Amino acid sequence: MTSSPKRCTIRLVEVRIAVAKVNKYATSESGDTLEAVERPNGGLSVVLADGQTSGRGAKAVSMMVVRKVITLLAEGVRDGAAARAASDALFTEKKGQVISTLNICSVDLRSGTIVLTRNNPAPIFVGRGEKSDCLEAESVPLGTSRDVRPLITEMVLEPGLVVVVYTDGLVHAGRRRGQPMDACEVIRSLLEEQDPSPQELADALLAHAMKLDDDRPADDISVVVLKVVHHAGDDVRRMSIRLPIAQ
Amino acid sequence: MTSSPKRCTIRLVEVRIAVAKVNKYATSESGDTLEAVERPNGGLSVVLADGQTSGRGAKAVSMMVVRKVITLLAEGVRDGAAARAASDALFTEKKGQVISTLNICSVDLRSGTIVLTRNNPAPIFVGRGEKSDCLEAESVPLGTSRDVRPLITEMVLEPGLVVVVYTDGLVHAGRRRGQPMDACEVIRSLLEEQDPSPQELADALLAHAMKLDDDRPADDISVVVLKVVHHAGDDVRRMSIRLPIAQ
Repeated sequence: MTSSPKRCTIRLVEVRIAVAKVNKYATSESGDTLEAVERPNGGLSVVLADGQTSGRGAKAVSMMVVRKVITLLAEGVRDGAAARAASDALFTEKKGQVISTLNICSVDLRSGTIVLTRNNPAPIFVGRGEKSDCLEAESVPLGTSRDVRPLITEMVLEPGLVVVVYTDGLVHAGRRRGQPMDACEVIRSLLEEQDPSPQELADALLAHAMKLDDDRPADDISVVVLKVVHHAGDDVRRMSIRLPIAQ
Repeated sequence: MTSSPKRCTIRLVEVRIAVAKVNKYATSESGDTLEAVERPNGGLSVVLADGQTSGRGAKAVSMMVVRKVITLLAEGVRDGAAARAASDALFTEKKGQVISTLNICSVDLRSGTIVLTRNNPAPIFVGRGEKSDCLEAESVPLGTSRDVRPLITEMVLEPGLVVVVYTDGLVHAGRRRGQPMDACEVIRSLLEEQDPSPQELADALLAHAMKLDDDRPADDISVVVLKVVHHAGDDVRRMSIRLPIAQ
């Protein structure tokens, strides 16, 4: 018997994340807040909150929630505990009168997983190759009562995984015209047609929603797409931001 | 005399930001930390810190500095005051034994300006059409003494503006081989050759530095490129992140 030499194979993957975000028509400020933060033990988290109502008040609430969550994640607090803490803080401050949705989408390099935390009635799309799921178990926003629990889904970080997280602006698109959007179905058909990049998928989804609202979105809409792909390129981390401004 | 009808013209511009970031050769953790945060009065800030030495200790320092600055900016504290506060906190905690560079690059929609805050010996490149400057006045890192002051440069947010901020890994590239890189000169030549997108410029700059180091960077390198362009597209804000991972 001959033993084959041991080889140390290093699998390279790349996590690609894209965000597309638009304000409710004719409002200068979005009630949605989205931020990305590095995790102290490796990886990163994208945190998305949508404050109740729209405009200035909603913005203050969603910023407060995102800030609270990000501060805790940066200290190494786990995602679920950070969500609960933000809910308790909001409930204490607003006495249950103001609520906010929350999604945390984490790339956790210590566990080698993607961790999705949801306090949001809007579903999350999860695709793996041919299979796909629409995570739509009932989930309540933060600040509704004491002891609000998030729904947590953890998946191995492996090529082929596609996750799409969005705020309720996407779910409500078209409702005004009586043609509400089935976001998971639209994502499925976009993925079947071609192999879109995360930014193409986020843009196409947002464009679909805006069309249903005659290009006058009835609510703030935020879409986050995460995709894990095989990677043969360099070790460079990249980020890009595009911020249109009316002067 | 006829009076022409008054017209309300809205100039649309877009701020595009790109980041490229690589670790020192054979280290799994970068001493550089970079994060972006939304400003409470409109706009966003990119915060970049480089902790003394490399590896775990440097990472903890740069994360602490970035976290402190981002928390203050999110509360509406001005950039210069946030930099000073982070310096005092670092000096108090480390008794002047540990230092960190800091750059804040802000798009301030309230004032309609780009605000550059620098506590970093590494220069900043600023280009406007044909003209360009290399901001290289002496600037000390945070934590070196009490009352460290940042250098602040404020510019009107207008199309044609290009800003490139980087950590000293870029300045030191090639030094090992006795061919140190003149970053501002390389940026000038890259801009003259063509009209690169921010990501193309950041990537080209990083590739140039890595070539000088034989693809084994002697230090962590981070490059931030900000460009203001005319914009005729949609109102969608976009962000994308690419995170390569060795499993």
